[in-house]
Amino acid sequence: MISGIKALTFDTFGTVVDWRTSIINDLSAFGRERGLDIDWTAFTDEWKTAYKPGMDKVRTGAWPWTTIDGIYRKALDAMAPRYGLDKLDEAALQHINRVWHRLLPWPDAAAGLARLKKKYLISTLSNGDVDMLANMAKLGGLPWDAILCGQVFRHFKPDPEIYLGAIEMLGCKPHEVMMVAAHNDDLRHARSHGMRTGFVVRPTEYGPQQKTNLQADGPWDVVAKDFGELATALGA
Amino acid sequence: MISGIKALTFDTFGTVVDWRTSIINDLSAFGRERGLDIDWTAFTDEWKTAYKPGMDKVRTGAWPWTTIDGIYRKALDAMAPRYGLDKLDEAALQHINRVWHRLLPWPDAAAGLARLKKKYLISTLSNGDVDMLANMAKLGGLPWDAILCGQVFRHFKPDPEIYLGAIEMLGCKPHEVMMVAAHNDDLRHARSHGMRTGFVVRPTEYGPQQKTNLQADGPWDVVAKDFGELATALGA
Repeated sequence: MISGIKALTFDTFGTVVDWRTSIINDLSAFGRERGLDIDWTAFTDEWKTAYKPGMDKVRTGAWPWTTIDGIYRKALDAMAPRYGLDKLDEAALQHINRVWHRLLPWPDAAAGLARLKKKYLISTLSNGDVDMLANMAKLGGLPWDAILCGQVFRHFKPDPEIYLGAIEMLGCKPHEVMMVAAHNDDLRHARSHGMRTGFVVRPTEYGPQQKTNLQADGPWDVVAKDFGELATALGA
Repeated sequence: MISGIKALTFDTFGTVVDWRTSIINDLSAFGRERGLDIDWTAFTDEWKTAYKPGMDKVRTGAWPWTTIDGIYRKALDAMAPRYGLDKLDEAALQHINRVWHRLLPWPDAAAGLARLKKKYLISTLSNGDVDMLANMAKLGGLPWDAILCGQVFRHFKPDPEIYLGAIEMLGCKPHEVMMVAAHNDDLRHARSHGMRTGFVVRPTEYGPQQKTNLQADGPWDVVAKDFGELATALGA
Protein backbone atom coordinates (compact mmCIF):
# COMPACT_ATOMS: atom_id res chain seq x y z
CA MET A 1 0.00 0.00 0.00
CA ILE A 2 1.09 3.54 -0.72
CA SER A 3 2.52 5.12 2.43
CA GLY A 4 3.42 8.52 3.82
CA ILE A 5 0.14 10.20 2.93
CA LYS A 6 -1.35 12.53 5.54
CA ALA A 7 -4.05 14.41 3.69
CA LEU A 8 -6.35 13.96 0.71
CA THR A 9 -7.71 16.83 -1.39
CA PHE A 10 -10.74 16.26 -3.56
CA ASP A 11 -11.94 17.82 -6.72
CA THR A 12 -15.64 18.26 -6.03
CA PHE A 13 -17.77 18.90 -9.14
CA GLY A 14 -18.05 15.55 -10.88
CA THR A 15 -15.70 13.75 -8.50
CA VAL A 16 -17.70 14.03 -5.26
CA VAL A 17 -21.06 15.38 -6.42
CA ASP A 18 -23.15 14.49 -9.46
CA TRP A 19 -23.78 18.06 -10.56
CA ARG A 20 -25.59 17.18 -13.80
CA THR A 21 -28.26 14.87 -12.38
CA SER A 22 -28.65 17.09 -9.32
CA ILE A 23 -29.30 20.22 -11.37
CA ILE A 24 -31.62 18.56 -13.86
CA ASN A 25 -33.71 17.05 -11.06
CA ASP A 26 -33.71 20.17 -8.89
CA LEU A 27 -34.64 22.58 -11.67
CA SER A 28 -37.17 20.19 -13.23
CA ALA A 29 -39.03 20.16 -9.91
CA PHE A 30 -38.77 23.95 -9.71
CA GLY A 31 -40.01 24.25 -13.31
CA ARG A 32 -43.03 22.03 -12.63
CA GLU A 33 -43.98 24.15 -9.62
CA ARG A 34 -43.75 27.30 -11.71
CA GLY A 35 -45.41 25.80 -14.80
CA LEU A 36 -42.30 26.38 -16.92
CA ASP A 37 -41.89 24.26 -20.05
CA ILE A 38 -38.12 24.14 -20.37
CA ASP A 39 -35.64 21.48 -21.50
CA TRP A 40 -33.65 21.48 -18.27
CA THR A 41 -31.16 18.92 -19.57
CA ALA A 42 -30.21 21.20 -22.45
CA PHE A 43 -30.20 24.15 -20.07
CA THR A 44 -27.88 22.39 -17.63
CA ASP A 45 -25.46 21.23 -20.29
CA GLU A 46 -25.29 24.69 -21.84
CA TRP A 47 -24.92 26.40 -18.45
CA LYS A 48 -22.00 24.18 -17.48
CA THR A 49 -20.09 25.27 -20.61
CA ALA A 50 -19.80 28.76 -19.05
CA TYR A 51 -17.64 27.44 -16.21
CA LYS A 52 -14.24 27.02 -17.77
CA PRO A 53 -14.28 30.12 -20.02
CA GLY A 54 -15.41 32.19 -17.02
CA MET A 55 -12.56 30.91 -14.87
CA ASP A 56 -10.13 31.48 -17.73
CA LYS A 57 -11.26 35.11 -17.92
CA VAL A 58 -10.37 35.45 -14.23
CA ARG A 59 -7.15 33.48 -14.57
CA THR A 60 -5.91 35.64 -17.43
CA GLY A 61 -6.93 38.88 -15.75
CA ALA A 62 -9.61 39.78 -18.32
CA TRP A 63 -12.11 39.81 -15.44
CA PRO A 64 -11.41 40.85 -11.85
CA TRP A 65 -11.76 38.15 -9.22
CA THR A 66 -15.21 36.59 -9.67
CA THR A 67 -16.71 33.76 -7.64
CA ILE A 68 -18.18 30.68 -9.28
CA ASP A 69 -21.58 31.94 -8.14
CA GLY A 70 -20.82 35.12 -10.05
CA ILE A 71 -19.62 33.28 -13.17
CA TYR A 72 -22.75 31.15 -13.33
CA ARG A 73 -24.97 34.14 -12.65
CA LYS A 74 -23.50 36.04 -15.60
CA ALA A 75 -24.14 32.99 -17.79
CA LEU A 76 -27.65 32.55 -16.39
CA ASP A 77 -28.53 36.16 -17.15
CA ALA A 78 -27.20 35.78 -20.69
CA MET A 79 -29.14 32.53 -21.28
CA ALA A 80 -32.36 33.61 -19.55
CA PRO A 81 -34.17 35.17 -22.52
CA ARG A 82 -33.63 32.13 -24.75
CA TYR A 83 -35.02 29.81 -22.09
CA GLY A 84 -37.91 32.07 -21.13
CA LEU A 85 -36.42 32.66 -17.70
CA ASP A 86 -36.26 36.42 -18.04
CA LYS A 87 -39.85 36.68 -16.85
CA LEU A 88 -38.85 35.29 -13.44
CA ASP A 89 -38.27 37.63 -10.52
CA GLU A 90 -34.89 38.14 -8.84
CA ALA A 91 -35.66 35.71 -6.00
CA ALA A 92 -36.42 32.94 -8.50
CA LEU A 93 -33.25 33.63 -10.48
CA GLN A 94 -31.23 33.51 -7.24
CA HIS A 95 -32.90 30.22 -6.39
CA ILE A 96 -31.87 28.82 -9.78
CA ASN A 97 -28.33 30.13 -9.47
CA ARG A 98 -27.95 28.61 -6.03
CA VAL A 99 -28.68 25.14 -7.37
CA TRP A 100 -24.88 24.78 -7.37
CA HIS A 101 -25.12 24.87 -3.56
CA ARG A 102 -27.63 22.00 -3.64
CA LEU A 103 -25.64 19.39 -5.58
CA LEU A 104 -25.91 15.88 -4.22
CA PRO A 105 -23.03 13.42 -3.83
CA TRP A 106 -22.51 10.27 -5.83
CA PRO A 107 -23.96 7.35 -3.82
CA ASP A 108 -20.55 6.13 -2.60
CA ALA A 109 -19.07 9.52 -1.70
CA ALA A 110 -20.26 10.30 1.84
CA ALA A 111 -19.56 6.80 3.19
CA GLY A 112 -16.14 6.66 1.52
CA LEU A 113 -15.19 10.08 2.90
CA ALA A 114 -16.29 9.06 6.41
CA ARG A 115 -13.90 6.09 6.20
CA LEU A 116 -11.05 8.19 4.81
CA LYS A 117 -11.57 10.91 7.43
CA LYS A 118 -10.65 8.47 10.20
CA LYS A 119 -7.14 8.11 8.82
CA TYR A 120 -6.47 11.27 6.83
CA LEU A 121 -7.20 14.97 6.79
CA ILE A 122 -9.75 15.35 3.99
CA SER A 123 -10.42 18.62 2.22
CA THR A 124 -12.07 19.91 -0.88
CA LEU A 125 -9.74 21.34 -3.51
CA SER A 126 -12.34 22.75 -5.79
CA ASN A 127 -12.94 25.80 -7.90
CA GLY A 128 -16.29 26.20 -6.12
CA ASP A 129 -16.85 28.92 -3.53
CA VAL A 130 -16.62 28.39 0.25
CA ASP A 131 -20.35 28.81 0.95
CA MET A 132 -21.27 26.70 -2.09
CA LEU A 133 -19.05 23.83 -0.93
CA ALA A 134 -20.10 24.16 2.71
CA ASN A 135 -23.78 24.18 1.82
CA MET A 136 -23.52 21.12 -0.40
CA ALA A 137 -21.48 19.31 2.25
CA LYS A 138 -24.20 20.02 4.80
CA LEU A 139 -26.93 18.79 2.48
CA GLY A 140 -25.06 15.68 1.36
CA GLY A 141 -23.37 14.78 4.65
CA LEU A 142 -19.83 15.26 3.35
CA PRO A 143 -17.60 15.32 6.46
CA TRP A 144 -14.81 17.61 5.25
CA ASP A 145 -12.07 18.59 7.68
CA ALA A 146 -11.52 21.77 5.67
CA ILE A 147 -12.98 23.64 2.72
CA LEU A 148 -10.13 24.75 0.47
CA CYS A 149 -11.05 26.20 -2.88
CA GLY A 150 -10.46 28.84 -5.52
CA GLN A 151 -12.01 31.57 -3.39
CA VAL A 152 -9.51 30.96 -0.57
CA PHE A 153 -6.53 31.41 -2.85
CA ARG A 154 -8.08 33.81 -5.35
CA HIS A 155 -6.85 31.40 -7.99
CA PHE A 156 -8.68 28.74 -9.92
CA LYS A 157 -7.28 25.36 -10.87
CA PRO A 158 -5.11 24.70 -12.71
CA ASP A 159 -3.14 27.69 -11.40
CA PRO A 160 -0.21 26.44 -9.29
CA GLU A 161 -1.19 28.71 -6.40
CA ILE A 162 -4.24 26.66 -5.49
CA TYR A 163 -2.41 23.31 -5.35
CA LEU A 164 0.60 24.76 -3.54
CA GLY A 165 -1.59 26.80 -1.22
CA ALA A 166 -3.61 23.76 -0.18
CA ILE A 167 -0.46 21.75 0.53
CA GLU A 168 0.82 24.57 2.73
CA MET A 169 -2.44 25.07 4.64
CA LEU A 170 -2.70 21.35 5.30
CA GLY A 171 0.74 21.57 6.90
CA CYS A 172 2.18 18.97 4.54
CA LYS A 173 4.90 18.38 2.04
CA PRO A 174 3.62 17.82 -1.52
CA HIS A 175 4.16 14.06 -1.48
CA GLU A 176 2.13 13.81 1.74
CA VAL A 177 -1.03 15.00 -0.03
CA MET A 178 -3.04 12.98 -2.55
CA MET A 179 -5.20 14.83 -5.05
CA VAL A 180 -8.31 12.83 -5.87
CA ALA A 181 -10.21 13.61 -9.05
CA ALA A 182 -12.29 12.12 -11.84
CA HIS A 183 -10.33 14.30 -14.26
CA ASN A 184 -6.95 13.27 -15.58
CA ASP A 185 -5.91 16.86 -16.28
CA ASP A 186 -6.41 17.87 -12.66
CA LEU A 187 -4.19 14.98 -11.59
CA ARG A 188 -1.53 15.90 -14.14
CA HIS A 189 -1.30 19.38 -12.61
CA ALA A 190 -1.28 18.02 -9.07
CA ARG A 191 1.47 15.54 -9.96
CA SER A 192 3.56 18.30 -11.52
CA HIS A 193 3.66 19.90 -8.06
CA GLY A 194 4.76 16.69 -6.39
CA MET A 195 1.38 15.55 -5.09
CA ARG A 196 0.24 11.94 -5.04
CA THR A 197 -2.72 11.19 -7.28
CA GLY A 198 -5.92 9.15 -7.05
CA PHE A 199 -8.24 8.71 -10.02
CA VAL A 200 -11.87 7.80 -9.41
CA VAL A 201 -13.79 7.18 -12.61
CA ARG A 202 -17.15 8.93 -13.00
CA PRO A 203 -18.25 7.76 -16.44
CA THR A 204 -21.61 9.57 -16.42
CA GLU A 205 -20.59 12.93 -14.99
CA TYR A 206 -21.49 14.52 -18.34
CA GLY A 207 -24.35 12.11 -18.99
CA PRO A 208 -24.64 8.82 -20.84
CA GLN A 209 -22.74 10.10 -23.89
CA GLN A 210 -19.61 11.11 -21.96
CA LYS A 211 -16.46 10.75 -24.08
CA THR A 212 -13.71 12.00 -21.76
CA ASN A 213 -12.12 10.73 -18.56
CA LEU A 214 -13.60 7.27 -19.04
CA GLN A 215 -10.35 5.84 -17.79
CA ALA A 216 -7.11 6.76 -16.09
CA ASP A 217 -4.56 7.95 -18.63
CA GLY A 218 -1.57 8.79 -16.43
CA PRO A 219 0.70 7.13 -13.87
CA TRP A 220 -1.67 7.72 -10.96
CA ASP A 221 -0.88 6.19 -7.59
CA VAL A 222 -4.38 4.83 -7.10
CA VAL A 223 -7.15 4.14 -9.61
CA ALA A 224 -10.55 3.27 -8.14
CA LYS A 225 -14.09 2.79 -9.32
CA ASP A 226 -15.55 4.67 -6.36
CA PHE A 227 -14.70 6.17 -2.94
CA GLY A 228 -15.15 2.83 -1.19
CA GLU A 229 -12.47 1.27 -3.37
CA LEU A 230 -10.29 4.35 -2.82
CA ALA A 231 -10.65 4.01 0.96
CA THR A 232 -9.70 0.33 0.80
CA ALA A 233 -6.70 1.11 -1.37
CA LEU A 234 -5.57 3.66 1.22
CA GLY A 235 -6.06 1.36 4.19
CA ALA A 236 -8.95 3.37 5.60
CA MET B 1 -35.53 35.46 19.49
CA ILE B 2 -32.98 37.19 17.29
CA SER B 3 -33.78 36.52 13.63
CA GLY B 4 -32.14 36.75 10.23
CA ILE B 5 -28.94 34.96 11.18
CA LYS B 6 -27.56 32.47 8.66
CA ALA B 7 -24.06 31.74 9.89
CA LEU B 8 -22.08 31.73 13.12
CA THR B 9 -18.33 32.32 13.32
CA PHE B 10 -16.44 31.24 16.40
CA ASP B 11 -13.31 32.44 18.02
CA THR B 12 -11.58 29.19 18.89
CA PHE B 13 -8.75 29.53 21.44
CA GLY B 14 -10.49 30.01 24.77
CA THR B 15 -13.99 30.14 23.32
CA VAL B 16 -14.24 26.62 21.88
CA VAL B 17 -11.15 24.90 23.25
CA ASP B 18 -9.57 25.04 26.70
CA TRP B 19 -6.02 25.66 25.47
CA ARG B 20 -4.49 26.14 28.92
CA THR B 21 -5.66 22.93 30.58
CA SER B 22 -5.06 20.98 27.36
CA ILE B 23 -1.46 22.11 27.05
CA ILE B 24 -0.62 21.66 30.72
CA ASN B 25 -2.05 18.12 30.71
CA ASP B 26 -0.54 17.14 27.36
CA LEU B 27 2.96 18.41 28.11
CA SER B 28 2.93 17.13 31.69
CA ALA B 29 2.34 13.64 30.33
CA PHE B 30 5.09 14.16 27.75
CA GLY B 31 7.43 15.45 30.45
CA ARG B 32 6.80 12.43 32.68
CA GLU B 33 7.58 10.07 29.78
CA ARG B 34 10.82 11.92 29.13
CA GLY B 35 11.74 12.37 32.78
CA LEU B 36 11.68 16.15 32.51
CA ASP B 37 11.21 18.16 35.68
CA ILE B 38 9.52 21.28 34.37
CA ASP B 39 6.81 23.59 35.69
CA TRP B 40 4.49 23.13 32.72
CA THR B 41 1.93 25.57 34.07
CA ALA B 42 4.50 28.36 34.15
CA PHE B 43 5.76 27.23 30.76
CA THR B 44 2.26 27.33 29.24
CA ASP B 45 1.40 30.73 30.67
CA GLU B 46 4.67 32.22 29.46
CA TRP B 47 4.38 30.62 26.04
CA LYS B 48 0.89 32.05 25.51
CA THR B 49 2.21 35.57 26.05
CA ALA B 50 4.12 35.25 22.76
CA TYR B 51 0.88 35.01 20.76
CA LYS B 52 -0.34 38.58 20.60
CA PRO B 53 3.05 40.30 20.18
CA GLY B 54 3.88 37.80 17.40
CA MET B 55 0.67 38.54 15.55
CA ASP B 56 1.21 42.25 16.06
CA LYS B 57 4.64 41.92 14.42
CA VAL B 58 2.90 40.39 11.39
CA ARG B 59 0.03 42.87 11.45
CA THR B 60 2.39 45.85 11.46
CA GLY B 61 4.64 44.41 8.79
CA ALA B 62 7.68 44.00 11.08
CA TRP B 63 7.61 40.30 10.24
CA PRO B 64 6.58 38.75 6.94
CA TRP B 65 3.48 36.51 7.01
CA THR B 66 4.05 33.95 9.76
CA THR B 67 1.67 31.19 10.81
CA ILE B 68 0.66 30.70 14.45
CA ASP B 69 2.72 27.50 14.35
CA GLY B 70 5.67 29.65 13.35
CA ILE B 71 5.01 32.30 15.99
CA TYR B 72 4.86 29.70 18.78
CA ARG B 73 7.93 27.93 17.43
CA LYS B 74 10.00 31.11 17.56
CA ALA B 75 8.88 31.59 21.17
CA LEU B 76 9.54 27.96 22.03
CA ASP B 77 13.07 28.17 20.67
CA ALA B 78 13.69 31.33 22.67
CA MET B 79 12.31 29.80 25.90
CA ALA B 80 13.88 26.35 25.49
CA PRO B 81 17.22 26.99 27.26
CA ARG B 82 15.57 28.44 30.37
CA TYR B 83 13.25 25.42 30.67
CA GLY B 84 15.93 22.85 29.87
CA LEU B 85 14.21 21.95 26.60
CA ASP B 86 17.22 22.73 24.43
CA LYS B 87 18.55 19.24 25.02
CA LEU B 88 15.55 17.74 23.20
CA ASP B 89 15.84 16.65 19.58
CA GLU B 90 13.96 18.31 16.73
CA ALA B 91 11.21 15.67 16.69
CA ALA B 92 10.48 16.30 20.37
CA LEU B 93 10.40 20.05 19.87
CA GLN B 94 8.00 19.62 16.96
CA HIS B 95 5.83 17.41 19.14
CA ILE B 96 5.73 20.13 21.81
CA ASN B 97 4.99 22.86 19.28
CA ARG B 98 2.16 20.85 17.77
CA VAL B 99 0.37 20.70 21.12
CA TRP B 100 -1.65 23.61 19.72
CA HIS B 101 -3.12 21.09 17.25
CA ARG B 102 -4.17 18.85 20.16
CA LEU B 103 -6.26 21.28 22.20
CA LEU B 104 -9.47 19.81 23.59
CA PRO B 105 -12.86 21.51 23.61
CA TRP B 106 -14.70 22.78 26.65
CA PRO B 107 -17.16 20.08 27.75
CA ASP B 108 -20.20 21.82 26.22
CA ALA B 109 -18.63 22.82 22.90
CA ALA B 110 -19.02 19.79 20.60
CA ALA B 111 -22.64 19.09 21.58
CA GLY B 112 -23.60 22.76 21.30
CA LEU B 113 -21.98 23.06 17.86
CA ALA B 114 -23.78 19.92 16.67
CA ARG B 115 -27.09 21.54 17.59
CA LEU B 116 -26.17 24.87 15.99
CA LYS B 117 -24.94 23.17 12.81
CA LYS B 118 -28.45 21.87 12.10
CA LYS B 119 -29.76 25.40 11.72
CA TYR B 120 -26.75 27.54 10.79
CA LEU B 121 -23.51 27.44 8.86
CA ILE B 122 -20.85 27.23 11.55
CA SER B 123 -17.24 28.19 10.99
CA THR B 124 -14.14 28.98 12.93
CA LEU B 125 -12.97 32.59 12.77
CA SER B 126 -9.69 32.15 14.54
CA ASN B 127 -6.15 33.35 14.30
CA GLY B 128 -5.06 29.68 14.30
CA ASP B 129 -3.81 27.97 11.15
CA VAL B 130 -5.95 25.76 8.91
CA ASP B 131 -4.21 22.48 9.78
CA MET B 132 -4.12 23.39 13.50
CA LEU B 133 -7.86 24.07 13.56
CA ALA B 134 -8.68 21.04 11.40
CA ASN B 135 -6.59 18.73 13.55
CA MET B 136 -8.14 19.92 16.81
CA ALA B 137 -11.63 19.67 15.30
CA LYS B 138 -10.92 16.06 14.33
CA LEU B 139 -9.63 15.24 17.80
CA GLY B 140 -12.43 17.00 19.65
CA GLY B 141 -15.31 16.17 17.33
CA LEU B 142 -16.03 19.77 16.37
CA PRO B 143 -18.32 19.61 13.32
CA TRP B 144 -17.32 22.79 11.49
CA ASP B 145 -18.85 23.53 8.12
CA ALA B 146 -15.77 25.58 7.23
CA ILE B 147 -12.38 26.50 8.64
CA LEU B 148 -11.86 30.24 8.24
CA CYS B 149 -8.86 31.77 9.92
CA GLY B 150 -5.95 34.15 9.76
CA GLN B 151 -4.03 31.96 7.34
CA VAL B 152 -6.87 32.08 4.79
CA PHE B 153 -6.91 35.88 4.74
CA ARG B 154 -3.24 36.48 5.58
CA HIS B 155 -4.54 38.80 8.28
CA PHE B 156 -4.95 38.23 11.98
CA LYS B 157 -7.80 39.51 14.10
CA PRO B 158 -8.53 42.29 14.76
CA ASP B 159 -7.66 43.34 11.19
CA PRO B 160 -10.90 44.17 9.35
CA GLU B 161 -9.93 41.88 6.45
CA ILE B 162 -10.52 38.71 8.43
CA TYR B 163 -14.03 39.64 9.63
CA LEU B 164 -15.06 41.04 6.25
CA GLY B 165 -13.47 38.15 4.38
CA ALA B 166 -15.34 35.58 6.46
CA ILE B 167 -18.67 37.35 5.90
CA GLU B 168 -18.00 37.32 2.14
CA MET B 169 -16.93 33.68 1.99
CA LEU B 170 -19.99 32.62 3.95
CA GLY B 171 -22.09 34.31 1.28
CA CYS B 172 -23.75 36.58 3.83
CA LYS B 173 -24.38 40.18 4.68
CA PRO B 174 -22.71 41.33 7.91
CA HIS B 175 -25.91 41.28 9.98
CA GLU B 176 -26.55 37.68 8.89
CA VAL B 177 -23.41 36.46 10.68
CA MET B 178 -22.96 36.21 14.43
CA MET B 179 -19.46 36.30 15.87
CA VAL B 180 -19.23 34.14 18.99
CA ALA B 181 -16.37 34.73 21.41
CA ALA B 182 -15.39 34.67 25.05
CA HIS B 183 -13.54 37.94 24.46
CA ASN B 184 -15.32 41.26 24.54
CA ASP B 185 -12.73 42.93 22.32
CA ASP B 186 -13.27 40.41 19.51
CA LEU B 187 -17.00 41.14 19.65
CA ARG B 188 -16.41 44.89 19.62
CA HIS B 189 -14.47 44.54 16.37
CA ALA B 190 -17.06 42.19 14.86
CA ARG B 191 -19.87 44.57 15.79
CA SER B 192 -18.01 47.50 14.22
CA HIS B 193 -18.32 45.63 10.90
CA GLY B 194 -22.04 45.08 11.31
CA MET B 195 -21.92 41.51 12.61
CA ARG B 196 -24.21 40.18 15.31
CA THR B 197 -22.47 39.16 18.53
CA GLY B 198 -22.68 36.31 21.01
CA PHE B 199 -20.66 36.28 24.22
CA VAL B 200 -19.97 32.97 25.96
CA VAL B 201 -18.20 33.39 29.26
CA ARG B 202 -15.12 31.22 29.88
CA PRO B 203 -14.03 32.36 33.34
CA THR B 204 -11.11 29.95 33.65
CA GLU B 205 -9.57 30.26 30.18
CA TYR B 206 -6.49 31.80 31.79
CA GLY B 207 -6.76 29.71 34.94
CA PRO B 208 -8.37 30.25 38.31
CA GLN B 209 -6.92 33.76 38.70
CA GLN B 210 -8.42 35.12 35.49
CA LYS B 211 -9.23 38.83 35.74
CA THR B 212 -10.55 39.69 32.25
CA ASN B 213 -13.64 38.78 30.26
CA LEU B 214 -15.45 37.55 33.36
CA GLN B 215 -18.60 39.13 32.01
CA ALA B 216 -20.13 40.70 28.95
CA ASP B 217 -19.26 44.38 28.78
CA GLY B 218 -20.92 45.42 25.52
CA PRO B 219 -24.35 45.44 23.91
CA TRP B 220 -24.08 41.86 22.64
CA ASP B 221 -27.06 40.21 21.01
CA VAL B 222 -26.71 37.04 23.06
CA VAL B 223 -24.90 36.34 26.32
CA ALA B 224 -24.64 32.69 27.33
CA LYS B 225 -22.88 30.60 29.94
CA ASP B 226 -22.03 27.86 27.44
CA PHE B 227 -22.73 26.60 23.91
CA GLY B 228 -25.85 24.76 25.02
CA GLU B 229 -27.38 27.99 26.26
CA LEU B 230 -26.23 29.72 23.08
CA ALA B 231 -27.95 27.07 20.94
CA THR B 232 -31.15 27.45 22.92
CA ALA B 233 -31.03 31.24 22.58
CA LEU B 234 -30.67 30.82 18.82
CA GLY B 235 -33.50 28.31 18.49
CA ALA B 236 -31.20 25.45 17.55
